[in-house]
Amino acid sequence: MEIQDLAGLAQKLFDDIREISSDGVGVTRDSYGDGETSTANYLRQFAESEGLHVETDRAANLIFSLPDTREQDASIWVGSHMDSVPQGGNFDGLAGIIAGLLCLIVQKQRGRSSVTPLRVIAFRGEESAWFGKAYMGSGSIFGKLSADDLKLKHRSTGKPLSSYMEQVGVDTAAIAAQELLFDKKKATAYLELHIEQGPIMVARKIPLGVVPGIRGNVRHNRVTCIGEAGHSGAVPRWLRHDAMFAVAELITRLDEHWRALLERGIDLVVTVGIVGTDPAEHSISRIPGSVNFSFEARSKSHETLEGFYQLMRSECASIARERGVKFEFDRRLESAPAVMDEKICAALAEACERNGTTYENVPSGAGHDASLFANAGIPSGMLFIRNENGSHNPLEAMDIDDFMLGVRALADTIDHL
Amino acid sequence: MEIQDLAGLAQKLFDDIREISSDGVGVTRDSYGDGETSTANYLRQFAESEGLHVETDRAANLIFSLPDTREQDASIWVGSHMDSVPQGGNFDGLAGIIAGLLCLIVQKQRGRSSVTPLRVIAFRGEESAWFGKAYMGSGSIFGKLSADDLKLKHRSTGKPLSSYMEQVGVDTAAIAAQELLFDKKKATAYLELHIEQGPIMVARKIPLGVVPGIRGNVRHNRVTCIGEAGHSGAVPRWLRHDAMFAVAELITRLDEHWRALLERGIDLVVTVGIVGTDPAEHSISRIPGSVNFSFEARSKSHETLEGFYQLMRSECASIARERGVKFEFDRRLESAPAVMDEKICAALAEACERNGTTYENVPSGAGHDASLFANAGIPSGMLFIRNENGSHNPLEAMDIDDFMLGVRALADTIDHL
Repeated sequence: MEIQDLAGLAQKLFDDIREISSDGVGVTRDSYGDGETSTANYLRQFAESEGLHVETDRAANLIFSLPDTREQDASIWVGSHMDSVPQGGNFDGLAGIIAGLLCLIVQKQRGRSSVTPLRVIAFRGEESAWFGKAYMGSGSIFGKLSADDLKLKHRSTGKPLSSYMEQVGVDTAAIAAQELLFDKKKATAYLELHIEQGPIMVARKIPLGVVPGIRGNVRHNRVTCIGEAGHSGAVPRWLRHDAMFAVAELITRLDEHWRALLERGIDLVVTVGIVGTDPAEHSISRIPGSVNFSFEARSKSHETLEGFYQLMRSECASIARERGVKFEFDRRLESAPAVMDEKICAALAEACERNGTTYENVPSGAGHDASLFANAGIPSGMLFIRNENGSHNPLEAMDIDDFMLGVRALADTIDHL
Repeated sequence: MEIQDLAGLAQKLFDDIREISSDGVGVTRDSYGDGETSTANYLRQFAESEGLHVETDRAANLIFSLPDTREQDASIWVGSHMDSVPQGGNFDGLAGIIAGLLCLIVQKQRGRSSVTPLRVIAFRGEESAWFGKAYMGSGSIFGKLSADDLKLKHRSTGKPLSSYMEQVGVDTAAIAAQELLFDKKKATAYLELHIEQGPIMVARKIPLGVVPGIRGNVRHNRVTCIGEAGHSGAVPRWLRHDAMFAVAELITRLDEHWRALLERGIDLVVTVGIVGTDPAEHSISRIPGSVNFSFEARSKSHETLEGFYQLMRSECASIARERGVKFEFDRRLESAPAVMDEKICAALAEACERNGTTYENVPSGAGHDASLFANAGIPSGMLFIRNENGSHNPLEAMDIDDFMLGVRALADTIDHL
């Protein structure tokens, strides 16, 4: 029984979970909500039917292992997340969990563990789409969530993260106290297989990517620009305090800075994903009195993030002065950039070479749970699988053959670490 | 019984109608909806109790006259509109109707009509906030609404204008056929008293303004910029088709053109009152795939409107090319600029002088039903009343003393025309 014989099983797992989390358009596996929990229940049932041991950590993440792995054994961890964005794709997150489970199944069926035992972890709450905060499941076990984070509100119900977490059995008191819930001594390495979420690997025709590093980010979920509402026909330009013109100018200035920084070879992406005048009062003939928007910058470099953030704040101050508006910011959120372990990257690359699979180094623009492990000092590595149409949308398209090449390289790496 | 003795009555009318159309924040007198109809019913009942004759035209506008005015008499028309924007102010529109009614009441009580009889018209549907189209009530009687206009959808229910109009008894077949429902021969003049909706008169400390002309406008209720959604961390700038950055650049370019045109002394205001990423799919970590926005330009000059509109379209084409996005436009809507009649303006100014009231010429940035009369060839004039805090918001503040100065000048003008 070789790993490549499991393609049919992999396909069935992807299909079953797509079905239970379908929303008619894509999949919706809401963090700490029904979609994510249905997926967790399915995975637990499947793993138990395969004779694997399943447990839950204090942050309600699932941990899978061979039944004879002892509590005190240090192990190689393989993980990714169960949740998705609203109307998301089926592979973002789930691919890494299924890959880990297939590695465990092969070990179980051959009756022999890897030299260092394998544990697979299925995280909850990786996507920021639901509570405006990413890596909630992996952040929780490293004491990286705060009591303030637990108050973050669900995007549609407005209920706090803590109430959602408690419904699935999370120990929110320990998390609010920022207790370390993960014993680092028990992890010799962390590996994560994930679809690529950008267009690079399809363009370069490479099925696998070894990830040297992961971008960090700095964010505001909600900035409000407050101007002065007025009749669109009756207020001349010099008396206007138009919140929308102010926000448009801010975005345009940020775009100009971004372009200039790219020309200097600096790694940076900037996104204003949410913008809106107030539906309760906006009208075609009313100068917008306020506009809400989100802000996000991502970079491999902490210095770039900090520098660009300060630039954004000073442009806001300048526009506020010039246009007689003001900007109000909610809490600044950030995720640190992460560097993957050189030896693990080398091991992943060697596994690709042994199996004759084309690969390249592909840095990760998107954030991953692996960042938390790397920044906690655990040697970490990531393997990207080629994927069309990006992610965070129903059109993600990962070929099952590419996926199996990745699982094979992953299993091979685990056996050699 | 002089007009100035009616201040108490005026206050009562304003208070009563504010109460019946209150929404808790401001007033909501929705065009062809409950708020407007309650106001119409109140006005009819009040006028009948004062012994005035009340009838309804085929567009469901109310017409008030002395009971002995004969059907065939040519008359001076005084009018304004009953509706308001959502959470609007109490005086925008209503002031002109109450002013007209007070003039009729004085004529009734003194037992003598003006030389040319007076008719007061209370329009429905002046505000574009409800169906994205202004002057529906006055436009209807001049054959200026089309069958397409009747399909315009209500901002919240999505039901067509025609169904709302039919519920209040409008002859929509005649309107769709663009029949002329107003006998121009029966109008020697049209006068409209209205609060100023800009900040000019408060700044200059003048209670009354004589309006030489009214800005026209060109609009799109909804333009959609379509780009390509993507993961905010994983798509580099050169592969992005960010709809929000495109719209921000468009607004910023329009602002630059606007500033340049103002420096050349050109009359223009530009507003993008509604902007929004799609709430069903937007997220802080998603490159916006589409953005909806409204567009409006206003000017006293038809050429400026046309020129600026074409400039906007060519900037859209240029941004579409540069950013790989596209812009989709709904139907272009326009209202022609209007010039008020010189003799009527002179008569209004003389009335102010006779009464010792300070006034100035104040052009109207906002549109008014008077435009329709002026552009139909009926000699028209407008009187502005000083008003704080602009309009289209609950904070409009017209002093009742200023209002009564306006009513006095209006009544005096009617007696001298």
